[in-house]
Amino acid sequence: MRHSSLLLAGLLGATVTATAVLGAAHMDPKALEDAVAARQAHMKLYAFNLGLLGGMAKGEVDYDASAAEAAAANLSALASVDQTRYWPEGSDAEALKTRALPDIWTKMDEFETAQDALIQATMSLEEAAGTDLAALQGAMGDVGKSCGGCHKPFRKPE
Amino acid sequence: MRHSSLLLAGLLGATVTATAVLGAAHMDPKALEDAVAARQAHMKLYAFNLGLLGGMAKGEVDYDASAAEAAAANLSALASVDQTRYWPEGSDAEALKTRALPDIWTKMDEFETAQDALIQATMSLEEAAGTDLAALQGAMGDVGKSCGGCHKPFRKPE
Repeated sequence: MRHSSLLLAGLLGATVTATAVLGAAHMDPKALEDAVAARQAHMKLYAFNLGLLGGMAKGEVDYDASAAEAAAANLSALASVDQTRYWPEGSDAEALKTRALPDIWTKMDEFETAQDALIQATMSLEEAAGTDLAALQGAMGDVGKSCGGCHKPFRKPE
Repeated sequence: MRHSSLLLAGLLGATVTATAVLGAAHMDPKALEDAVAARQAHMKLYAFNLGLLGGMAKGEVDYDASAAEAAAANLSALASVDQTRYWPEGSDAEALKTRALPDIWTKMDEFETAQDALIQATMSLEEAAGTDLAALQGAMGDVGKSCGGCHKPFRKPE
């Protein structure tokens, strides 16, 4: 995973512009649904990698430095993906089958700040995950917080 | 997207070990299904980004250098994700709802070579996509070939 530290260095140096609002006027319903499907696929990949790391952190899965590092690097790479096209206006819970609250589009600055917290937390996790179990456990806290930092204000309760 | 060239440099310098076989003996059916769902989500994200770039390349969508560069960087980041846990033994078309042929596991070297071709092609695309439409079109050819380079031998026809 040698590219990971380079990716980290690059991200720290770059201005993070994870999200921008696309005009709903140009989006047909199919395009809105495709955007929802894409961001849900992206979330599934977060969960797939977090599942392993969470299992290790809780002691339910044996700690494996190499596997932990790979999963954490995956999370960091996924978090760095530009999400501009995931969040077109009109792709909210009032219009489509999604839990994305309309507040995302009225509080875009806060939404982007919440996304940036995930980027930072996964970069720290990537640095820590391969060291040892204690380091992994320590770094997972901020990742969990960053999940909640977006889900609590911007995701409709089930 | 300043991290992109650093990612590129890192990947070129790193040995790509995208895939390894996990023992099926340790996988419960749910874990196999989760692996299939994860790789299908990953493919969906390829398609989401390729859809925009293909539309531009064909002239169906106006060329936008910034959007093209972002989508190509996304593809490159996605291609760099470690896929070890996507392909456990036993997660093939004979056992599960997937088009993944058993040849993946008997010809793992060829499968990994095919994946490496996608990594290389998306890195080239990332370098080209923001230059101009002709550069994008030129780089899309190898990406398309690399898709077929894995799908033809290793994916069951519909």
